[in-house]
Amino acid sequence: MLTFYDNDMTRPEASPSSRQRLILQLERLIADLQPGDRLPPVRELTQRYASSPVTVSAALRELARSGALVVRPGAGTFVARTLAVTAAAPFPGTRPGSDVTWQTLALHSRPALPAAVQNLFRPPLADTVPFADGYLDETLQPLGLMNAALGRVARRPGVWSRLPPEGLEALRAWFAHSAGPGFTASDVVIVPGGQAAISTVFRSLLPRGAPVLVESPTYFGVLAAARVAGLHLVPVPTDQHGVRPDLLEQAFRSSGARAVYLQPLYANPAGTVLAQERRATVLNSAERAGAFVIEDDYARDLHFVGPPPPTLVSQGEGRVIYLRSLTKVTAAGLRIAALIAHGPVLQRLKEARAVEDFFPAALQQEVALDVVTSRGWGAHLSRLQETLRDRQGAALRALAEFCPQIRAEHVPQGGFVLWLRLPEGSGADEFAAQALRAGVQISAGSSSFPAEPSGEYLRLSYAACSPSRVSEGVRRLGLILPA
Amino acid sequence: MLTFYDNDMTRPEASPSSRQRLILQLERLIADLQPGDRLPPVRELTQRYASSPVTVSAALRELARSGALVVRPGAGTFVARTLAVTAAAPFPGTRPGSDVTWQTLALHSRPALPAAVQNLFRPPLADTVPFADGYLDETLQPLGLMNAALGRVARRPGVWSRLPPEGLEALRAWFAHSAGPGFTASDVVIVPGGQAAISTVFRSLLPRGAPVLVESPTYFGVLAAARVAGLHLVPVPTDQHGVRPDLLEQAFRSSGARAVYLQPLYANPAGTVLAQERRATVLNSAERAGAFVIEDDYARDLHFVGPPPPTLVSQGEGRVIYLRSLTKVTAAGLRIAALIAHGPVLQRLKEARAVEDFFPAALQQEVALDVVTSRGWGAHLSRLQETLRDRQGAALRALAEFCPQIRAEHVPQGGFVLWLRLPEGSGADEFAAQALRAGVQISAGSSSFPAEPSGEYLRLSYAACSPSRVSEGVRRLGLILPA
Repeated sequence: MLTFYDNDMTRPEASPSSRQRLILQLERLIADLQPGDRLPPVRELTQRYASSPVTVSAALRELARSGALVVRPGAGTFVARTLAVTAAAPFPGTRPGSDVTWQTLALHSRPALPAAVQNLFRPPLADTVPFADGYLDETLQPLGLMNAALGRVARRPGVWSRLPPEGLEALRAWFAHSAGPGFTASDVVIVPGGQAAISTVFRSLLPRGAPVLVESPTYFGVLAAARVAGLHLVPVPTDQHGVRPDLLEQAFRSSGARAVYLQPLYANPAGTVLAQERRATVLNSAERAGAFVIEDDYARDLHFVGPPPPTLVSQGEGRVIYLRSLTKVTAAGLRIAALIAHGPVLQRLKEARAVEDFFPAALQQEVALDVVTSRGWGAHLSRLQETLRDRQGAALRALAEFCPQIRAEHVPQGGFVLWLRLPEGSGADEFAAQALRAGVQISAGSSSFPAEPSGEYLRLSYAACSPSRVSEGVRRLGLILPA
Repeated sequence: MLTFYDNDMTRPEASPSSRQRLILQLERLIADLQPGDRLPPVRELTQRYASSPVTVSAALRELARSGALVVRPGAGTFVARTLAVTAAAPFPGTRPGSDVTWQTLALHSRPALPAAVQNLFRPPLADTVPFADGYLDETLQPLGLMNAALGRVARRPGVWSRLPPEGLEALRAWFAHSAGPGFTASDVVIVPGGQAAISTVFRSLLPRGAPVLVESPTYFGVLAAARVAGLHLVPVPTDQHGVRPDLLEQAFRSSGARAVYLQPLYANPAGTVLAQERRATVLNSAERAGAFVIEDDYARDLHFVGPPPPTLVSQGEGRVIYLRSLTKVTAAGLRIAALIAHGPVLQRLKEARAVEDFFPAALQQEVALDVVTSRGWGAHLSRLQETLRDRQGAALRALAEFCPQIRAEHVPQGGFVLWLRLPEGSGADEFAAQALRAGVQISAGSSSFPAEPSGEYLRLSYAACSPSRVSEGVRRLGLILPA
């Protein structure tokens, strides 16, 4: 997080992250108190959380506005007995005196989003083990390559200019090469990150209300994007070899879906690789259904051993829309991904990007191109792969030591996620909430299922944790596990 | 456009812009020939257009693939007699042997987009006057400020890190301040550019098929975004004082629309300012309809005299969703804009951005913040306003001299667009096509109307032309005007 600025802008209070962090700390404190209890005075909170009085007051005000606290002038600040609702300010963040209740009629209902979406708005906490975070921590980001690239790119003329909506040709050529032989720059659209790519595909290809097939479980960001696009999610069960081809065929037939979204390589969260002998069957099912296969190849460079199997798109050109992102192998802030397709669907995607976003910033595209074509890129990937393997090892050892009741269903040979099964009846959602209070941010498996979960799961990401942090996090989980 | 790269990546041919430019030049040549005519040999084209043989061959191949040319091995390249359609490759860019006709069934129909959308894919031509371009040329971009900002920002830790989806707090505070008194950082969401902002608002607020009111004429990018979002456009006539309040009231009543999109300041393309006495009426109409007002304030810093009237959002807090972009006052590549709103709609917009895009790159946000809070920002704006006024003056003088038949309906005191009326029966679309052949890229007015145009118009933007280029462009227009 950035906290210091060179400019002379007056800032009304401390940095956003320190206030947000304090709010989370206060929420933990409130959770430990009873309704009606009085909070310690500001002076004491200031010392306990090493925050300024301004930040403490702002955090208390925000919690009061959200209904978690009640301020009684002269008496103190108290944990609310019920959710505070006033006629003047029924929505969080609403100013008193401004009636916005009419907006409810104008806005209609909204899609139900997985609870994990709210985590996107929470900054990472310094004293919490970030098992929920799917981006590399700074020790694994190729900061040297990115900063050197930025230095070179910053001096180039035209770096602030308009680009064609499909993106920089040389970067498109690089992505085309990465998808397999036979692809060229003209098959590629550059998109600002994988999430934007998924959203673009969903809303450009499928009308609202249309069915889309997804693996069950799958990445919660995909479930959210599909729901926001108004799609009807059709879960297709998976086993340790990826999506079940017999059930996929059946799902195509019963739903009439025109698209299936798959992660054939180290699927997030289950970690499975789509078996070689299933690939032709999957493509044939899609062909019989007249449907697209959306191949999200987020983990192409995250394998621990040998080269990964070839892409699905190289076997099913024209049938497969291929998605590749750089954020997972560089940093969350290098927001560059690519969509590769062939035929009229490519034109549909290009026009959607042009109309909905115009073009991704040239600066980001130039830096990305410089990084992936620089001499150090291969070494970065090797080090990344080795480190992730070490972290996975540390996680598995710590699980065996501290959490023998938790089972990794499958140990993937790549990626950064372990999919952990809790003993029946443990209540994964409640466990994840308890874990947060114990200083571990981890996602409950329920966010990864489009329908009823097939068991009690946790999704443990080690993308942002050193091996010692991994061990410490798992140790803390062990402390709250039912014996 | 960027043409040189430090890296050793092998590039199969010359830069995209040189090939695209050659394709446009060849399209002009083809337009001057008859169907069946033979093109000059590659050797001659190479010399005539100062291109490499590789680029010429690639351009010819692309034109042949699109059906404009026919290659007869041994005999030469000919202008096609009819649009070439082959069973194997019915779509542009399709490789022979790969049958993608099934995609048509999977994709269904697509929204009808204004013809001007295709211009987004065409790079600007060096020898053409860019009256269609709505972004500042490099002489007007604050390159010094942006590069200095980039130098400072590049050294900051965390510049590649994840940010909360709503964006950097200090930048949000700056945008809040710009909207009027009473707004704070928590009312703001940062978005990568105005087009993304408009698209987000349309698709998050309104279900597909819902009506949305727009000024007629209005910005073609807005019409495209609404169509891609599946909305039903309801045009509301304007006069020289902005949208007609009586017809707006009627449109709300007859359509049941829950939103109206307005540019109250120097509306693009008509240049009008919503009159002071109409503002309360507009807000009251929206209130009676239970509808949102979307205020696109793209020209807030582009006034030639005095300070512009206050924002609509400062008069209608909670009712108005306010949009402000930095690209129009900096450069197309600094893709930063903000949405400001109040009440549950703000939460709706924040979640949509998080799910559909995650967050705009920190690097872009940091640079934007540094630029707008730097000491030189005010001087940049003053110089920008002066220069745009000079360019407008040059355009009006040249029009009087070279195109007395063309009339500027209204001379705006800000912005970068003149809305020009051609004599009845001139055929603005055909005139714009002729202008391109004469070396002037200018938009026909029809792209700015959601329905039948109210006359024959041209939209002349001087954002990217020096006064002498403005005069030269208008002179060229005069040459093709019917006497």
